[in-house]
Amino acid sequence: MIIIMEHRATEAQSQKVIDFLKSNGFQVRYNIGEVHTVIDAIGDKTTITPGRLAAFDGVKEVKIIREPFRLASRDRKKEDTVITFSNGVKIGGNNPPVLMAGPCSVEDNYDNLLQVATAVKEVGGQFLRGGAFKPRTSPYDFQGYEEKALKHLKRAGEETGLLVVSELMDASDLPMMIDYVDVLQIGARNVQNFKLLKAVGKVDKPVILKRGLASTIREYLLAAEHIMYNGNPNVILCERGIRSFDSAFTRNVMDIASIPVIKKYSHLPIIVDPSHGTGQKYLIEPMAKAGLVVGADGVMIEVHHDPENALSDGKQSLSIPMFKEVMTRLNEFSNLVRQVV
Amino acid sequence: MIIIMEHRATEAQSQKVIDFLKSNGFQVRYNIGEVHTVIDAIGDKTTITPGRLAAFDGVKEVKIIREPFRLASRDRKKEDTVITFSNGVKIGGNNPPVLMAGPCSVEDNYDNLLQVATAVKEVGGQFLRGGAFKPRTSPYDFQGYEEKALKHLKRAGEETGLLVVSELMDASDLPMMIDYVDVLQIGARNVQNFKLLKAVGKVDKPVILKRGLASTIREYLLAAEHIMYNGNPNVILCERGIRSFDSAFTRNVMDIASIPVIKKYSHLPIIVDPSHGTGQKYLIEPMAKAGLVVGADGVMIEVHHDPENALSDGKQSLSIPMFKEVMTRLNEFSNLVRQVV
Amino acid sequence: MIIIMEHRATEAQSQKVIDFLKSNGFQVRYNIGEVHTVIDAIGDKTTITPGRLAAFDGVKEVKIIREPFRLASRDRKKEDTVITFSNGVKIGGNNPPVLMAGPCSVEDNYDNLLQVATAVKEVGGQFLRGGAFKPRTSPYDFQGYEEKALKHLKRAGEETGLLVVSELMDASDLPMMIDYVDVLQIGARNVQNFKLLKAVGKVDKPVILKRGLASTIREYLLAAEHIMYNGNPNVILCERGIRSFDSAFTRNVMDIASIPVIKKYSHLPIIVDPSHGTGQKYLIEPMAKAGLVVGADGVMIEVHHDPENALSDGKQSLSIPMFKEVMTRLNEFSNLVRQVV
Amino acid sequence: MIIIMEHRATEAQSQKVIDFLKSNGFQVRYNIGEVHTVIDAIGDKTTITPGRLAAFDGVKEVKIIREPFRLASRDRKKEDTVITFSNGVKIGGNNPPVLMAGPCSVEDNYDNLLQVATAVKEVGGQFLRGGAFKPRTSPYDFQGYEEKALKHLKRAGEETGLLVVSELMDASDLPMMIDYVDVLQIGARNVQNFKLLKAVGKVDKPVILKRGLASTIREYLLAAEHIMYNGNPNVILCERGIRSFDSAFTRNVMDIASIPVIKKYSHLPIIVDPSHGTGQKYLIEPMAKAGLVVGADGVMIEVHHDPENALSDGKQSLSIPMFKEVMTRLNEFSNLVRQVV
Repeated sequence: MIIIMEHRATEAQSQKVIDFLKSNGFQVRYNIGEVHTVIDAIGDKTTITPGRLAAFDGVKEVKIIREPFRLASRDRKKEDTVITFSNGVKIGGNNPPVLMAGPCSVEDNYDNLLQVATAVKEVGGQFLRGGAFKPRTSPYDFQGYEEKALKHLKRAGEETGLLVVSELMDASDLPMMIDYVDVLQIGARNVQNFKLLKAVGKVDKPVILKRGLASTIREYLLAAEHIMYNGNPNVILCERGIRSFDSAFTRNVMDIASIPVIKKYSHLPIIVDPSHGTGQKYLIEPMAKAGLVVGADGVMIEVHHDPENALSDGKQSLSIPMFKEVMTRLNEFSNLVRQVV
Repeated sequence: MIIIMEHRATEAQSQKVIDFLKSNGFQVRYNIGEVHTVIDAIGDKTTITPGRLAAFDGVKEVKIIREPFRLASRDRKKEDTVITFSNGVKIGGNNPPVLMAGPCSVEDNYDNLLQVATAVKEVGGQFLRGGAFKPRTSPYDFQGYEEKALKHLKRAGEETGLLVVSELMDASDLPMMIDYVDVLQIGARNVQNFKLLKAVGKVDKPVILKRGLASTIREYLLAAEHIMYNGNPNVILCERGIRSFDSAFTRNVMDIASIPVIKKYSHLPIIVDPSHGTGQKYLIEPMAKAGLVVGADGVMIEVHHDPENALSDGKQSLSIPMFKEVMTRLNEFSNLVRQVV
Repeated sequence: MIIIMEHRATEAQSQKVIDFLKSNGFQVRYNIGEVHTVIDAIGDKTTITPGRLAAFDGVKEVKIIREPFRLASRDRKKEDTVITFSNGVKIGGNNPPVLMAGPCSVEDNYDNLLQVATAVKEVGGQFLRGGAFKPRTSPYDFQGYEEKALKHLKRAGEETGLLVVSELMDASDLPMMIDYVDVLQIGARNVQNFKLLKAVGKVDKPVILKRGLASTIREYLLAAEHIMYNGNPNVILCERGIRSFDSAFTRNVMDIASIPVIKKYSHLPIIVDPSHGTGQKYLIEPMAKAGLVVGADGVMIEVHHDPENALSDGKQSLSIPMFKEVMTRLNEFSNLVRQVV
Repeated sequence: MIIIMEHRATEAQSQKVIDFLKSNGFQVRYNIGEVHTVIDAIGDKTTITPGRLAAFDGVKEVKIIREPFRLASRDRKKEDTVITFSNGVKIGGNNPPVLMAGPCSVEDNYDNLLQVATAVKEVGGQFLRGGAFKPRTSPYDFQGYEEKALKHLKRAGEETGLLVVSELMDASDLPMMIDYVDVLQIGARNVQNFKLLKAVGKVDKPVILKRGLASTIREYLLAAEHIMYNGNPNVILCERGIRSFDSAFTRNVMDIASIPVIKKYSHLPIIVDPSHGTGQKYLIEPMAKAGLVVGADGVMIEVHHDPENALSDGKQSLSIPMFKEVMTRLNEFSNLVRQVV
């Protein structure tokens, strides 16, 4: 890292930083200049973090040179991470994009879920997604059917041959939940719930980690790093929109460019969620295409047997007939794109 | 709430919404107009939320009229919430602002903590704050001394007569933690960790709930509502900066206006944290004053016995002598302001 | 529009608003309710704007129902605006996407510009773009060769058969500039320079209006409205990234979803500028594709004969060989997409 | 500045950058390292800007060390800029904060303006502010009475002994406008209208430059630099809120911390505008206090003789009686604060 001293920092202040770095095993090159002093330090940032150095008197700024994520970094692992499921489905690398679809919340009636699952299977999907625990901004909103929903999901998964994805909201639910699902999802609001990241880092199921509303790309990859550092290398990232100053027409702003950026700096697979990313049915198809065309490894879409009566997110859920139409075009598009990109 | 139908919504679509509202006990007034149709519905939004209605075909937008938080709302409870501690300290209402101060992380050596606590007490502070569990963006950063830190805090609190504040990061730590602290803090990253909010809603200790980096004021008050709805009315809000497009000079942008806004719409006490809000030592004093002058019920400040060697947040921590100087001026200021405001 | 009165607004306050509306020719429907009073007013917002009503005592909020832009709105004009140039080139509607390319700043040496223009023509481009007046954040940066640059542009346009686009920064330069260019560009920083919008509203050349860094979609379409309202219907919109909290990897966040949103609410053509939108060479190709796939009517790309020695924006400019490679793939992609989308 | 090369940059790429710097008169220190190469260059950034260097192949990032503004920087001029008007009024330094107040738009009737001006004078104000040219988001909103308004302003200024402030929207209006006003205002939307900045840089009247909705502090000071660089050192900055993700309760977020930040890095005076900063009457007083307490050199407030019938910004304008009350408390507060701060 590079330590930039303040304009009026004294030589003694600079020397103190240099001595501290050296005593911690850093290789240090510096020039104590008239106009400014810059210290270039090479060493192990796991012992001395930039924040530690920033606290020294006279330090203006500490600039990292290598990205702070390591296990998630393409510097460490050049080839794409590919995750293979028990039934042979693969995510990442040169594999065709996957489809994860299903209702925002799993509801009471199993047959309705099965109807959706059957449609997902029909259009070539690989994953059934559905909420059992629902993070809701208001305590007065529906909070999910919990274990009952997970049972429905598992059963529908088995009946259709789909893999099952559902969101984990608290580490204490993990033991109960783990056998019902093939992939654990961490929601956008929990992207920096470090206890939860640690917990899913210790299991051997893949994890979908959604980008937080205010996560920078660097923070987001560091959140993935928490999971990997605790032992689980199978992290699937998911772009689902970030908070911006304009929410009149879309709930969030989808940061489509983050997909190729992340592909450059990390080997992890990344999917795109246009349902949450826009909150608008009519934008699901175009934004799914935009995600795929820049390299997304899959698409996550909300579909409901009866959106007008959905217990959550009806506004952004496709009905089954609409979903089939959208997926027919999306599949055709995806095949074409793979021929040229 | 008001349901605004799309420009080209059919009469049948409008009628469907109206029938649905009526069948759910809403009082409905509407006019099916040539230019636009507007439906005004009065009833219990705990059964039918705006999101449910937004999913109906032809609905352009659902506009809420009453704020969605209730227990936190001044509409429901006009007088300020005042929280009284066992030693007589009070927060909220017309009580003088409190001071919560201490190190970002509690470190190994008890005497260092005691030094800080003694300084806090000397300048008239009421609360010793210190981190036992540290939410850290990178897994390579120091994560806190956990129970050992809590023991130090409790001991220093008893020795100095200060109340103790520390952050809870996971519901599973609550039983262990509860007896060590007088106030539980929920960090900015956990503001929508609903399981955690529910857990602290069930205990009888006051809770400091920090505003999230991307929390709107409405979402923030709904997060407080989660705690209150689960049974704990003693929520202390805390403005600590939000994410903005400019982080070159300050870590976050402090939304000072949110303090009088929240005072207007809620009866809950709110404090201000200029250390995290700015990330800069030299801004702590002016921004503490700015918070107090618009009505904050207290100030939270990071102080460390040796900021250059702090294990976290050294850049924004005051040393003990600086802290005493700042607090002398802040106390004088606070007394003056209370005479005129 | 709908006027929502405050919870404790008096009947007299509501009546005052109603009377004012009626006396201004509005049709008014209202119910003075116990819980809340809502006034629904239909009439001409060109005489009475929402801001006027918001100022009345007791008014909590004024909610518009119809979008405030009119000439730019698809409500008024269903079919896409197609702009046809003297040489038969068309933008908008079902026409194939156009390509506008060239250097950020036109430099001293004409041959270098011609080299670029020739490349643009070779890959099938229709427009040569280049800066004569450069809006620069710092006064110490290069400000453009002004009329000399325009002469170069016009000459290169004539020599290659390309149409010419250049940015106008001040209304006083318009008479000098108008004959050199086929399209006037208004830059992002001038999106609410209303005098400039008015000036280009009075000429008969098409105008590219770039979205501002902090423009909401509604404000952006209102900026277009200023031009149209002054007489010029030929406005081409351009998504070029908005300001967000993360600029570590990309200069701006491209709001790709804004393209289909704008297509839904407006009939105006819209192009995409991935050079400014990302500030990174390697993102130009994927983000151009993302823009095209969601319906953009064209792409604007920066290309320079020698990016390392460019006087501005070298970092985000393609070299001529890279540009040719990118365009070959982009053209192939664009043709494919048009077969399926 | 510091040039950080990419992880895999070749030695030849680094050497090319070094040679280019040297041939442009820079003093260069570097180490071509195994892990990374860092080049530290000292020299005149007016010839070679960071953007030029960023364009070289292999350059990851160019980090400036000295702030890019110079004339506006406290490094160049340590003492505060104090602006003295013909009538002896002073802004900046240790002078008491000034008050600028008046209607958003100057309206038809002179007596109404005089009423406001008289009130401003009565409460101790020094400046009458009023809009003659109004930047309006919609072309259907009132655009100002132009020269007629300026005549009213000048007359009211003379009658009351107040100095006059009004906004200039286009350089071409400057010759007409210059004699009517004592201070020219540049609005937030024109903060990067460089032609306008240049124009007001060439006159000898002080300029109030409002911060743009999306201006970083650095960009904002560079905008001031444009004015100063063109010859006018008398720039008054004005914090009036920036765009954020939450506009439900306040129009903008006031960045109060920017005031002490700017005071640290620049010698220019800065005032605070809580009317535009919040858009809410009830927040004017607390946010004016917050601005003053962190060091603002003055306050700008909208006051109207009849806010309910104001042609613009009625919602955020104080009536004359409210204004007098607010100012009585604000004056008392300001006096107190000056005793202790």
